[in-house]
Amino acid sequence: MEFTVKPIGHVESALKDLDAAPRQGDEGAPAAWLVFETEVADALSSLRPGDAVLVFTWLHRARRDVLRVHPRGDASRPQEGVFSTRSPHRPNPIGLHRVEVTAVEGRRVQVSGLEAIDGTPILDLKPVLAEDVGLR
Amino acid sequence: MEFTVKPIGHVESALKDLDAAPRQGDEGAPAAWLVFETEVADALSSLRPGDAVLVFTWLHRARRDVLRVHPRGDASRPQEGVFSTRSPHRPNPIGLHRVEVTAVEGRRVQVSGLEAIDGTPILDLKPVLAEDVGLR
Repeated sequence: MEFTVKPIGHVESALKDLDAAPRQGDEGAPAAWLVFETEVADALSSLRPGDAVLVFTWLHRARRDVLRVHPRGDASRPQEGVFSTRSPHRPNPIGLHRVEVTAVEGRRVQVSGLEAIDGTPILDLKPVLAEDVGLR
Repeated sequence: MEFTVKPIGHVESALKDLDAAPRQGDEGAPAAWLVFETEVADALSSLRPGDAVLVFTWLHRARRDVLRVHPRGDASRPQEGVFSTRSPHRPNPIGLHRVEVTAVEGRRVQVSGLEAIDGTPILDLKPVLAEDVGLR
């Protein structure tokens, strides 16, 4: 059983390569633009600056055959199963990034602090719920 | 451009149909089991009861051609773009569920409050980070 995902857009960022990218969005990641495909424009219509959103990406440079890793790539730490880490290397390399919308210009959406590199495909965008943050 | 996702397991739940499922996990959803495929067992090895995790599912019953919806299916509310809602109907129907691990029995992992129906394919499992909840 397999399913097909189709990118709804891509990341436009000053981060051009993986070595320069921070490991998490709150570790010095720059602002970036999410550039959406024309055919999903209607799905964007309610997005506003100030919205807290979750960006789902496809980590196209990741390896899919890795099941255990050293946390944060630190060989001095014992290996862990990838489902207990945020390693990009995992069977389905879906990235999750919590950001804030800072501008909306048609199909271009600017967000704060995104650690994904330039050209990363975007799969989905969802609003943050109180439930996600464990507040209810 | 397209990518292929392959389920790493499936949900085993008393929720058998969509009409009975709550809209969010904190709205009366039952405990459920995540049953993983043999080939990803190593990726589970660090999971422990008490872990707060994000379950990524493939909402296999969703429609992918819906771009605008009435929030929570309420026709009295104005339509919104799906990227501003948590509707299952969206171009890439990836579900996100924040749950707590309550038991680990080999490749079977019990979690609290999961609103996904029985048989829902699982795509990924990640630990919750402080960043996701906006605490840093």
